[in-house]
Amino acid sequence: MSSQEQSGFFISFEGGDGVGKSTQSRLLGEWLREVTGREVVWTREPGGTDLGLVLRQAVLHGDHMDPRTEALLYAADRAHHVASLIRPALSRGDVVITDRYLDSSIAYQAGGRTLAIDEVENLSLWATQGLLPQVTILLDLDPRAGAARLTEAPDRLESAGDEFHQRTRQAFLDRAAQDPGRWVVLDAAASIETIATQIRRAVTDRLGLAAAQPSAAQPAAHPRPTQVG
Amino acid sequence: MSSQEQSGFFISFEGGDGVGKSTQSRLLGEWLREVTGREVVWTREPGGTDLGLVLRQAVLHGDHMDPRTEALLYAADRAHHVASLIRPALSRGDVVITDRYLDSSIAYQAGGRTLAIDEVENLSLWATQGLLPQVTILLDLDPRAGAARLTEAPDRLESAGDEFHQRTRQAFLDRAAQDPGRWVVLDAAASIETIATQIRRAVTDRLGLAAAQPSAAQPAAHPRPTQVG
Repeated sequence: MSSQEQSGFFISFEGGDGVGKSTQSRLLGEWLREVTGREVVWTREPGGTDLGLVLRQAVLHGDHMDPRTEALLYAADRAHHVASLIRPALSRGDVVITDRYLDSSIAYQAGGRTLAIDEVENLSLWATQGLLPQVTILLDLDPRAGAARLTEAPDRLESAGDEFHQRTRQAFLDRAAQDPGRWVVLDAAASIETIATQIRRAVTDRLGLAAAQPSAAQPAAHPRPTQVG
Repeated sequence: MSSQEQSGFFISFEGGDGVGKSTQSRLLGEWLREVTGREVVWTREPGGTDLGLVLRQAVLHGDHMDPRTEALLYAADRAHHVASLIRPALSRGDVVITDRYLDSSIAYQAGGRTLAIDEVENLSLWATQGLLPQVTILLDLDPRAGAARLTEAPDRLESAGDEFHQRTRQAFLDRAAQDPGRWVVLDAAASIETIATQIRRAVTDRLGLAAAQPSAAQPAAHPRPTQVG
């Protein structure tokens, strides 16, 4: 990521379905808006743009497709998402919080299926011109516990089988271990408030908020406990 | 292309809009069906599959998108086209004739716009696992003459401007010059019958039809003149 081209903060949430990414994204964004005074943009992949919604529908609910087609559709969604929404927001100085980003492609496409990790990663890096989040929060949970939390009917990936989800979980953990400067791994079985506090601490540290925002509304290194959940 | 995995013939038509690709595809396919006794599958890119139609709509008639998004959508369409339609047909021994294939991406995306040729080519080769046509027929025409033949309202690419189409034409010609074993370049300003005859000769030669099909209904090296147009 080139710091010259952006002044915002780019944060991604990763993990299986049902681990609490949406809830924690909202809590983190509201807190960051309060302590930094910045605009917060919440988004997601796939489907963060109008085109993305078309592609999300095609990928998650369409007929069988081979792994390369699927990987290319996710990459197209991501390229458009970055070019039309994420980069403009970062250039304005906003906080961008995305529910899934390229690490999901790598975990699901490469970890879960048959494509090589470096192929899927190179595809996404080409699509995004190398844009990576400053902080990626992995909400880690046994896939069976995550599945029990879901209330909607499963889509094609969600119903892909327990072994697939176990491989995907491991792929996330492996990836996090390789880049500890970007990743924060948290136990998603903890309470919402506990996790939210851990996330605020980690983000404060990784983004250097206390140093960068000395006049913020809240002392970022010692955030006031926030009512959550 | 691996000859072990396919016994069919794979032929692509390339060139600008309005040069006669559809007409010549039909004539060539009908003739090949007659002389080889094979099934003929006519298809096109983008939009040769149900998923492809969704993507074609998104690419040609959607909002502005950056070049990488566009290239990835074409590659996704192509990956699905190859995996679900072209390879199965070639495995059955059919003739597959496609109106546009990966050379169009390279000419339009890289030649016409801002992406590097090798990036776009590598993307398509990854998408298709390296599948190239045995014969690619370029119907070459000055873009202004091609535009005059079009009767429908132009889509986004068709209306992209004269300079764009001149660069695209040159990109096709450059590409053909680099691989004369695969490419056949014909003047699309000639009559339909003249071009059809040139195509039959070239395909007979490139596919070795006379040698490979000694018992074909028509002596392939001296095809009976066919009523065309």
